[in-house]
Amino acid sequence: MDLAEGAGRRAEEAASPGEETILRAAIAVMAEHGYHGTSVRDIAEEAGFSASALYHHFESKQDVLATIMERGIKQLLLSTRTALAGAGEDPVDQLSALVSVQILFHLQDQRGTLLGTSEVRALEEPVRGRHLAKRRQQQRMFDQVVRRGVEQGVFTTSLPLEASRAIVVMCTGVASWFSPRSRVSREQIVERYQRLALDMVGAP
Amino acid sequence: MDLAEGAGRRAEEAASPGEETILRAAIAVMAEHGYHGTSVRDIAEEAGFSASALYHHFESKQDVLATIMERGIKQLLLSTRTALAGAGEDPVDQLSALVSVQILFHLQDQRGTLLGTSEVRALEEPVRGRHLAKRRQQQRMFDQVVRRGVEQGVFTTSLPLEASRAIVVMCTGVASWFSPRSRVSREQIVERYQRLALDMVGAP
Repeated sequence: MDLAEGAGRRAEEAASPGEETILRAAIAVMAEHGYHGTSVRDIAEEAGFSASALYHHFESKQDVLATIMERGIKQLLLSTRTALAGAGEDPVDQLSALVSVQILFHLQDQRGTLLGTSEVRALEEPVRGRHLAKRRQQQRMFDQVVRRGVEQGVFTTSLPLEASRAIVVMCTGVASWFSPRSRVSREQIVERYQRLALDMVGAP
Repeated sequence: MDLAEGAGRRAEEAASPGEETILRAAIAVMAEHGYHGTSVRDIAEEAGFSASALYHHFESKQDVLATIMERGIKQLLLSTRTALAGAGEDPVDQLSALVSVQILFHLQDQRGTLLGTSEVRALEEPVRGRHLAKRRQQQRMFDQVVRRGVEQGVFTTSLPLEASRAIVVMCTGVASWFSPRSRVSREQIVERYQRLALDMVGAP
């Protein structure tokens, strides 16, 4: 079984407690030192494991990164589909639901988000291509909602695809500046970004 | 002279041809492997220098990164101030000028932009604090234009600060997805983002 299948397999399954500990430790050290600046030994040490115990769970450092990235994007896709399925038929409600998921998901684990953004370059093929394809799927859910809104005359923007991409970027980007010590809550941020996104697509 | 003064000094001066070569080489290897995954030897090799020749120009790898980051943000601030000074008094023209600079600057060197976003964490103090202060200055120029637009009744948004931050994030983020091979030109992207930004602040 090659690495790609391995990471794929693990991304389908629930992680064992040992795997969870390793993945959390890897996010912590890689967020600080980057993928290439982090060794398997660093991850094992942070997790309180020996390097050989880590190799019991993961084939390599690349396998650890691939598992982090694949799980992240799968959870995001699942949360987004679930939110969309529960949002009813109104494009305003649908876009609001997408904005909420996109922001809250990326604020759940800001270090993990930073890693997800900066270390795609460190993913090896075929995992990298698969990851980027899933990101495009995520973008397409936004695209479809904005396009439907325009078709129904609910949104008036003449730039639906550009607006849709900008909305994903600005919602994901909240994780780059939001401080949990801020006086503004996550929920307030979500409400404000729902308003901004609706203004950008020309909703009432 | 400590490192911080060194980087500060160099950021004021024009780089020598040797320094330029080293900085360009550093951006190329760090964009691929990250700051912590790159050695002085890697940078020197990419630049076609010996490591000792590199140390003739820079004190350390941290000094190279600090110089890249400080020059980048200084150039961005200067370009932004220049664009704003030439944009006249209308908030619509001013915001359009800011959007144009923010996008074109970050598209000029997409690898450098990625580095600027992902390696702020690798900057040591006091350079890091100084860099973040300059980024806040950049954000404040957008904030002031949007606020003035609202005061003058030209922009109708009830969320000027949030809109201003979202505009900076979405314009900077163009560098994360734009392809020079795309059928859409940089100038078309700028025009479309000017429209999106104006829609978000509620301009006519």
